[in-house]
Amino acid sequence: MARLVEYADATAEVRAVFDDIKQARGVPDVNNFWKALAPYPDLLRRTWADVRHVMASAGALDPVVKEMLYLAVSMTNGCGYCIASHGAAARKAGMTDAMHGGLLAIVGMANETNRLAFGLGVPVDPGLAP
Amino acid sequence: MARLVEYADATAEVRAVFDDIKQARGVPDVNNFWKALAPYPDLLRRTWADVRHVMASAGALDPVVKEMLYLAVSMTNGCGYCIASHGAAARKAGMTDAMHGGLLAIVGMANETNRLAFGLGVPVDPGLAP
Amino acid sequence: MARLVEYADATAEVRAVFDDIKQARGVPDVNNFWKALAPYPDLLRRTWADVRHVMASAGALDPVVKEMLYLAVSMTNGCGYCIASHGAAARKAGMTDAMHGGLLAIVGMANETNRLAFGLGVPVDPGLAP
Amino acid sequence: MARLVEYADATAEVRAVFDDIKQARGVPDVNNFWKALAPYPDLLRRTWADVRHVMASAGALDPVVKEMLYLAVSMTNGCGYCIASHGAAARKAGMTDAMHGGLLAIVGMANETNRLAFGLGVPVDPGLAP
Amino acid sequence: MARLVEYADATAEVRAVFDDIKQARGVPDVNNFWKALAPYPDLLRRTWADVRHVMASAGALDPVVKEMLYLAVSMTNGCGYCIASHGAAARKAGMTDAMHGGLLAIVGMANETNRLAFGLGVPVDPGLAP
Amino acid sequence: MARLVEYADATAEVRAVFDDIKQARGVPDVNNFWKALAPYPDLLRRTWADVRHVMASAGALDPVVKEMLYLAVSMTNGCGYCIASHGAAARKAGMTDAMHGGLLAIVGMANETNRLAFGLGVPVDPGLAP
Repeated sequence: MARLVEYADATAEVRAVFDDIKQARGVPDVNNFWKALAPYPDLLRRTWADVRHVMASAGALDPVVKEMLYLAVSMTNGCGYCIASHGAAARKAGMTDAMHGGLLAIVGMANETNRLAFGLGVPVDPGLAP
Repeated sequence: MARLVEYADATAEVRAVFDDIKQARGVPDVNNFWKALAPYPDLLRRTWADVRHVMASAGALDPVVKEMLYLAVSMTNGCGYCIASHGAAARKAGMTDAMHGGLLAIVGMANETNRLAFGLGVPVDPGLAP
Repeated sequence: MARLVEYADATAEVRAVFDDIKQARGVPDVNNFWKALAPYPDLLRRTWADVRHVMASAGALDPVVKEMLYLAVSMTNGCGYCIASHGAAARKAGMTDAMHGGLLAIVGMANETNRLAFGLGVPVDPGLAP
Repeated sequence: MARLVEYADATAEVRAVFDDIKQARGVPDVNNFWKALAPYPDLLRRTWADVRHVMASAGALDPVVKEMLYLAVSMTNGCGYCIASHGAAARKAGMTDAMHGGLLAIVGMANETNRLAFGLGVPVDPGLAP
Repeated sequence: MARLVEYADATAEVRAVFDDIKQARGVPDVNNFWKALAPYPDLLRRTWADVRHVMASAGALDPVVKEMLYLAVSMTNGCGYCIASHGAAARKAGMTDAMHGGLLAIVGMANETNRLAFGLGVPVDPGLAP
Repeated sequence: MARLVEYADATAEVRAVFDDIKQARGVPDVNNFWKALAPYPDLLRRTWADVRHVMASAGALDPVVKEMLYLAVSMTNGCGYCIASHGAAARKAGMTDAMHGGLLAIVGMANETNRLAFGLGVPVDPGLAP
């Protein structure tokens, strides 16, 4: 269903965002995600501003940890596009096969034990209550 | 709905698992999660074996990263018990307020952008396809 | 947030549905779920008609299997009310501790392996394709 | 995995439902969703009766609002088929690009803030409690 | 687990955001959601900026439609806090009992038919393909 | 994104697991799921050990019931691969069209009523409380 807007067909407003993405990431073209957002310029501009702020700026977390957290959420939600793009980004940021195997194991297990906690209606331990 | 089995009321089979958890974690009593699993001894034994292997053993990921990945999944699924217990474990493993703020921001944003990718039906970029 | 409508305060239209539920289930009062639906009479009537048709009518599945399938979905979604009410219904329909332990194990494992399949982007095997 | 039943191959019972759908919607053929339900005639008949009642009948909500609510749920669940079919239905009912952009923004943000509320364990404000 | 920061205990940076929320909404105090975000000032400031932009600014969608879309997502995710707060906001913006009944019916049905589409693996109709 | 490891290219450690799967299931080759796990030998070995224990060993639940529970979870999560593989396994274990129709109806309805219970904030009935 996606309408992908290429740079050549984009408005000046959209091109400005595309240019900023390309420069920040050092890539010759933006990913399909951004091309699909282009028909909604306000959403495109704000989403990029948030992604750049959270993912690209300096902060308390290592870039590879940030990408692995993104991947853990995307695996839980079953977003194929997001797994493909952030899996590649995590690899680029330093995720090895061994680290990927550890992530897969934890994400699988957390989804399993989350359901056991739901199914058994486990009350929060006194020491952990607010 | 949880039936919590205390150590004093547990079978020898269950006590053996509880003893192993207490020793591995250096705690005087096990969490409610394990007490709620006790009526299902086979499930209790296997779940603990998996959790110990994945979370407690040496591996490619730092303990604090493991707990943060667990937390990211639990936030996505809305598991209150899991957020309380693994939030505490993450803090104990070294997660600061600044790191927690970074995690909250990424988990929120990934859940947002996952839905934009779904809603727009974005196709995987050629360079990322299998 | 629930506004629970008791029989004494219900309209004739709502009372007719409540009477039908009580008779079909052989209970002196309806569960909170139905009391919470009462402010929306059209939704109440249609939901009960569907639930009665699917859960209470004769069919290809045993009553205990139907309730266990309901429970598996509710555990996956983390619906505490639904787990409590359909857990009790499953027990009443014959679910033993051993069967419950089996259900918990399968629901946990399916939620785990679903995420591994998502995370690895596994393509459908040729023999299983449409 | 879908077995799609075409009109020419359908039983009289299934054809009656297909005829009703075609007449209510003014279309020459039913969508794949209905063809995939045809091997289960009881489910086909009841699902169509519910969809027609909720989506097609007069009611308190505008048709375009109904389709946008459907779309918001389908985006949250990541149902590609549902997003494609109800996205088209929403456009047909009057959803403009600007309205679609607003919907995308809200659905993304709600999925984000839902996780922040989960992750922080925010208690319901006194004035909003039941 | 929430640490709620009251105005009296807040830093100047947090107070500035709280003041802005109170003025924009015309309320004497902010909701618990904002108090729970206060230990993470960067996240608090950006989340409020996004919520204000999307929910409070003029746009293509009526305020009551925006709040109903929010509610539809929160129901699908099972976020109790979000349902309570945005249910109240939707009522305040004009959602009647009849409109709420319509929303409940559509959100329930979309969650049902999303799973039928998943379970049957329905392929997108040719006319709806990209 | 899946890297599928064929038997001919597998390490001795991976071949040992593949051999065990082939023997336990009486099949000439393993499914893609296992080939995709092969780059992560520890995860492959543990996942197979768990699946064999839960799905293949004797227990309190009939094989067809186990596969239907798996299918109910996979439909709720929208895992296309899992629905295809466990749908086939359920058919092989004895699931008829009538049983499949019953499963589809229950899984759809449970996903619907779960959201109504969430949306209305229904409190657990006194008789069902812990």
